[in-house]
Amino acid sequence: MRKVAIAGVGHTPFTFAAEKSSVELFNEAAMDAIIESGISAKDIQALYVGNVLGDFSEAQIMIQSYIADDLGATNIPATRYEGACASASLAIRDAFMWVASGFYDIVLVGGVETSAKMGTPLATRTFAMAHDSHYEYPAGLTFPGLFAMLAHLYTAKYDVPLEKLKEQMAMVTVQSHKYGVHNKYAQFQKEITVEDVLKSFMVCSPLQLYDCCPFSDGAAAMVLASEDVAKKLTKKPVYIAGVGQSSSGKLSAQKDYAPRIRAREVSVKQAYDMAGIGPDDVDLCELHDCFSIASIIAVESLGFAEFGKGGEMWETGQADRGGKVAINMSGGLKSKGHPIGATGASQAVDIVHQMRGEAEPGRQVEDVKIGLTDTLGGDGVLCNMVLKRGW
Amino acid sequence: MRKVAIAGVGHTPFTFAAEKSSVELFNEAAMDAIIESGISAKDIQALYVGNVLGDFSEAQIMIQSYIADDLGATNIPATRYEGACASASLAIRDAFMWVASGFYDIVLVGGVETSAKMGTPLATRTFAMAHDSHYEYPAGLTFPGLFAMLAHLYTAKYDVPLEKLKEQMAMVTVQSHKYGVHNKYAQFQKEITVEDVLKSFMVCSPLQLYDCCPFSDGAAAMVLASEDVAKKLTKKPVYIAGVGQSSSGKLSAQKDYAPRIRAREVSVKQAYDMAGIGPDDVDLCELHDCFSIASIIAVESLGFAEFGKGGEMWETGQADRGGKVAINMSGGLKSKGHPIGATGASQAVDIVHQMRGEAEPGRQVEDVKIGLTDTLGGDGVLCNMVLKRGW
Repeated sequence: MRKVAIAGVGHTPFTFAAEKSSVELFNEAAMDAIIESGISAKDIQALYVGNVLGDFSEAQIMIQSYIADDLGATNIPATRYEGACASASLAIRDAFMWVASGFYDIVLVGGVETSAKMGTPLATRTFAMAHDSHYEYPAGLTFPGLFAMLAHLYTAKYDVPLEKLKEQMAMVTVQSHKYGVHNKYAQFQKEITVEDVLKSFMVCSPLQLYDCCPFSDGAAAMVLASEDVAKKLTKKPVYIAGVGQSSSGKLSAQKDYAPRIRAREVSVKQAYDMAGIGPDDVDLCELHDCFSIASIIAVESLGFAEFGKGGEMWETGQADRGGKVAINMSGGLKSKGHPIGATGASQAVDIVHQMRGEAEPGRQVEDVKIGLTDTLGGDGVLCNMVLKRGW
Repeated sequence: MRKVAIAGVGHTPFTFAAEKSSVELFNEAAMDAIIESGISAKDIQALYVGNVLGDFSEAQIMIQSYIADDLGATNIPATRYEGACASASLAIRDAFMWVASGFYDIVLVGGVETSAKMGTPLATRTFAMAHDSHYEYPAGLTFPGLFAMLAHLYTAKYDVPLEKLKEQMAMVTVQSHKYGVHNKYAQFQKEITVEDVLKSFMVCSPLQLYDCCPFSDGAAAMVLASEDVAKKLTKKPVYIAGVGQSSSGKLSAQKDYAPRIRAREVSVKQAYDMAGIGPDDVDLCELHDCFSIASIIAVESLGFAEFGKGGEMWETGQADRGGKVAINMSGGLKSKGHPIGATGASQAVDIVHQMRGEAEPGRQVEDVKIGLTDTLGGDGVLCNMVLKRGW
């Protein structure tokens, strides 16, 4: 297997309802990645696109074909991936394999979503299709509901008082906004306080408005290349050193295991093992903070904190810049925004910016050598990626 | 790259509105493939699923996670592919690469669709999202409309009188039903005549009812394994000797090239070249006859007939059993049925049955050594696969 590098990246602003179409947004990010790599569209041998609700937001399926054509990458193989919020991550993992195997030298991968165009109520209802549709969805489950249940389970399982958990959750959000304010691509560039969070309206107890990420419109894309080719395209190749993926079925059916998410534990072990590293080696992590409680659950499964003690990472600054692992220096899904089919690619793109030292000063982490992405699709698909600085 | 074999296959009946869910249908096919391979669900290292309209037919996205869990293949990586009718073919091609590269030894791949549950009018309207949604779809284009335009273009470009083309198209349909009647999985097990076709009601001139395939419910699945492993699992491994994939963007924007579909020409060349064969070597082809005109257009791009002379293959028996290339001995999409996300897998499964001599006598082709699948996704994604008998 050959080494695979990210040779160039692109990222649109993440916004409320975008005026551009998904094809336009994706190719805005793609063109930046292409220009950065010094290639032309005709050098791209294959396209891998994450997209979830394009049929509801724009009445468009098979969008990959129109993206490739619009880009001028005529007649290349183009594939759409759907694994809810992890869609772009699944696309990256497959793209990685086509290059690692030696079949392709240069491919384009990313994700796009325009679910904010639908408005939050319709986006929430349609995205709830990423629950099991025969048992969970008819019971009224939406994602705020699911993560609210996980928060209550968390308090019971680890004997953490709800008031304490809520304060920790608020700290997660506050940190996200603290860094998102500096991210020029972020949807919410505004600092908030713990008090703001705890005063915001209740969405689904115990989750309040500021515990929840938004639906966003936007895209992110990357040019992947084999090691030899990447070295010709860029002086700063970032290697995809490890990938992992797992599925979990109905999260609510995992019973005693919840609020832990076994798929994450399986997936991240694959990524760590392939990269030959462990959690202590990670300098920077972009994790799936769809809800504040999700961050606390995630850091435990990723190996950064003991089970039941994830929230302490934010209390003690261990999740902050200069802490044990800098978490979500992009602002995360909460502040940067969450265009579901693009999020996995956005996480990787931001780590590349950090490694190159190109993040805005207010959020730049010093000397990032190893980064980790963590993307949770619905309640059932998990994908992780270890990125290593190549210079 | 290692050789990749199909070690076991499964196929549900293709039907009108199924009572079973997509998860149940997929796993009915999957269990047959698993049992045939002599493995257990726990041996499966990854899952690749084609599905298109699950969100409209069952309010289910991210179905792969529920399929894996229901099957007992807990926590495996599971990915959904969407490329309209070619969805399962894209899944197979990626699954092929993960085994060919040496990363996995045993994977499960297939497709499922329950669009017939929606009824033809809603299925037609929602599936029209596989056109470009910003220019073509608002203009009123649906797939019957698109292929009707291609038929008119065909008559003009090749100077074939419409009456002659309509008779050739009717012969395509008649042959499909002639063999579909013997296929125990087929939705329409009924012979029809050229007169029946020409008397059926007009859908979109010149396409009449019997020129159009149905929407169907059903699933097909295969266990893929590396050569070494496959030889332990089956005495009759069928090798995936070549794969090809291409995209075309808006077909209506291809202007002078239509009714030829350039993506097919690009894709099938990749598959032929990888397998080291040409069109003259193909004994049996399952091609994408979503409409009768589509078959005539397909045989030309696949290299079986000269451009403008595809229809003559049915007039002269060259597309029939014992002819130059036996075409759609399964009954094709027209008679076997077309559960869109499953069709690519169904085509491959049927060729495996034929190679093993397990097709019903009325449609069994003698001594099939090389088979070709051809799947057209919407008007923009094309996938081909060369299968070689391994014994």
